[in-house]
Amino acid sequence: MTNIVILGAGVMGSALAIPAASVDSNNVTLVGSPLDDELIGSVRTDRHHPTLNTTIDKRINAIHLSDLQARTVQDADVIVLGVSNAGVDWATTLLNKLQAKPDILALVTKGLVMADDASKAPLTYADVLSATTNRSRQQIVGIAGPCIARELALGYSTRVTFACENIDNANAMRHYFQTDYYRITTSNAIVAVEACAALKNFLCIGVSAMLSAHPLGNAHAKNPLAALFNQAVRELFILSRWICAATDTSDASINSPGSHVAFDLAGMGDLHVTVGGGRNSRLGTCLGRGETLSCVQTTSMAGVTVEGVDTGRNLQKGFRAACANGELDATQLPLTDAILTCIEFDKPFAIDFARLPG
Amino acid sequence: MTNIVILGAGVMGSALAIPAASVDSNNVTLVGSPLDDELIGSVRTDRHHPTLNTTIDKRINAIHLSDLQARTVQDADVIVLGVSNAGVDWATTLLNKLQAKPDILALVTKGLVMADDASKAPLTYADVLSATTNRSRQQIVGIAGPCIARELALGYSTRVTFACENIDNANAMRHYFQTDYYRITTSNAIVAVEACAALKNFLCIGVSAMLSAHPLGNAHAKNPLAALFNQAVRELFILSRWICAATDTSDASINSPGSHVAFDLAGMGDLHVTVGGGRNSRLGTCLGRGETLSCVQTTSMAGVTVEGVDTGRNLQKGFRAACANGELDATQLPLTDAILTCIEFDKPFAIDFARLPG
Repeated sequence: MTNIVILGAGVMGSALAIPAASVDSNNVTLVGSPLDDELIGSVRTDRHHPTLNTTIDKRINAIHLSDLQARTVQDADVIVLGVSNAGVDWATTLLNKLQAKPDILALVTKGLVMADDASKAPLTYADVLSATTNRSRQQIVGIAGPCIARELALGYSTRVTFACENIDNANAMRHYFQTDYYRITTSNAIVAVEACAALKNFLCIGVSAMLSAHPLGNAHAKNPLAALFNQAVRELFILSRWICAATDTSDASINSPGSHVAFDLAGMGDLHVTVGGGRNSRLGTCLGRGETLSCVQTTSMAGVTVEGVDTGRNLQKGFRAACANGELDATQLPLTDAILTCIEFDKPFAIDFARLPG
Repeated sequence: MTNIVILGAGVMGSALAIPAASVDSNNVTLVGSPLDDELIGSVRTDRHHPTLNTTIDKRINAIHLSDLQARTVQDADVIVLGVSNAGVDWATTLLNKLQAKPDILALVTKGLVMADDASKAPLTYADVLSATTNRSRQQIVGIAGPCIARELALGYSTRVTFACENIDNANAMRHYFQTDYYRITTSNAIVAVEACAALKNFLCIGVSAMLSAHPLGNAHAKNPLAALFNQAVRELFILSRWICAATDTSDASINSPGSHVAFDLAGMGDLHVTVGGGRNSRLGTCLGRGETLSCVQTTSMAGVTVEGVDTGRNLQKGFRAACANGELDATQLPLTDAILTCIEFDKPFAIDFARLPG
């Protein structure tokens, strides 16, 4: 029996429990965070998940945080972090307090963390959580790729990547989670995967601005949208290589032609699904229309966490420093610059297509 | 003065005339094919282009084929082939008859041509037209990238690539055509660019099947769409390398990490714009719904040319042979196989996600 504990009962953590629970040899526990009492209550009452708007398999043991036994966490072979960025510190503290020592700590949460020296490249959660939870990086598995939670919960064909420096652990995780409809590729390029998964939220903001920036409006201006989608993938490649270079020299696939993760599920593929759906895209559409971040965050998106903005804030200082010292070539990264300008100077999104590199 | 003759007054040829005519040093002539009499007539009467549904710049000299002087063609510095696949033989014959010897022959037309030995990799127009028009491949410029003609005609920001084995000719063409809104990157990888530009029409058929194949229907099933978009780009990379290997060993950029054209404007970028718009996508949506090619071609798309189908037909024998002899690894190309199965065996589109490679 494989004991799998998913921490956080939001849409992605809960959706991921569904394929896991359909594998007979798994014992799946879904633990609500302090914010999930209502969700867990609903699932326990009639198996309905209100934000996924689907039924949750009865083989999933959904529990309130207050009912969580230390032993459940200690016996876990796999713990999946399904919380938002803001919940990472809480989750880490909890796992340490309960003396969790899972063989594998898997990450659904995506983001970048500022390095101690903020003028350096930011870190991925692969590095940060390895340190704060006393797991070796060999035990951290990143889960990424194009996956809208509700579609996964409904059993739509979905294709993702599981990454771990130790490919055996990535393959073990595939064994635990793969079903007919949830298809998993594996990779050893965890830093690149985590970097791309975080950065695609950030870059999505700028691409999505093209959904509203042009006179014909939403979804009709396909040329500028495709141009910035293409540029975003180029910048994903450059930025993720930079982030990898700072923390990871072991990544075999990083320079292979045509196999870099920026051009695969965790990068290009996930960006494809992110543009046009979700909060990052909604924000981008507002900024493209001429609104400012502060305006959006006090009106149509008040109280809504936009992870791409957090990623941008944690990227910003290191990016500006790297452009200044020549570590990054700013002329190749106009989209990153344009989105950061929205965040740093509270301006509407603007990009000069003549500045896009040849 | 640069004399530019565009042969074919369909949407793409006509749209391309617009940025060209806005450059003062260009003298632009748009020549209708035998099928374009009505279009040219309309432009000559009131500058309105009926299929683009826009006004055509009065600096563009739009003429009927019957009014074309041999001298106009002979004096052309640049001739742009703006006809469909079916018009290529006609255009080649005309250019030879009129003794055209342009410095640059540029290609808007996209497709693959079966090799003399049909069991070999197909050829791109870069090779075929170089032979049939007596231009060296150094003089052939491929025009590719995400560009919906009407959006270009309306002055939307658009980003494309011009490719020529002789980069000076690609750069010269950029000089002739680039405006504030029509942005051009250049590349020497013409065979890869032409291969990707043709193959993206073909692969678009399978990706677009996901717009209708799933229970929730059109545009709601984003996970399978993103999964196949990602797979299509992977296959673009593999197929274009195969086509290049057969005809082109000079292509410097073909193996550079992160710079292969499959992952740039002529591949991924153009596929982005092609899925969801145009005839290839319409056909794919029908096939995804369970219709067969023969059924679609006698009902909803009767008489409509679908270039991706022609490309598939010219790819088919070489592809099957290369898979059989190990030149191509069929396990890496399930999407190509699935689309060819629709064409060869007149079946609805079907793909087993479990067969998608890791």
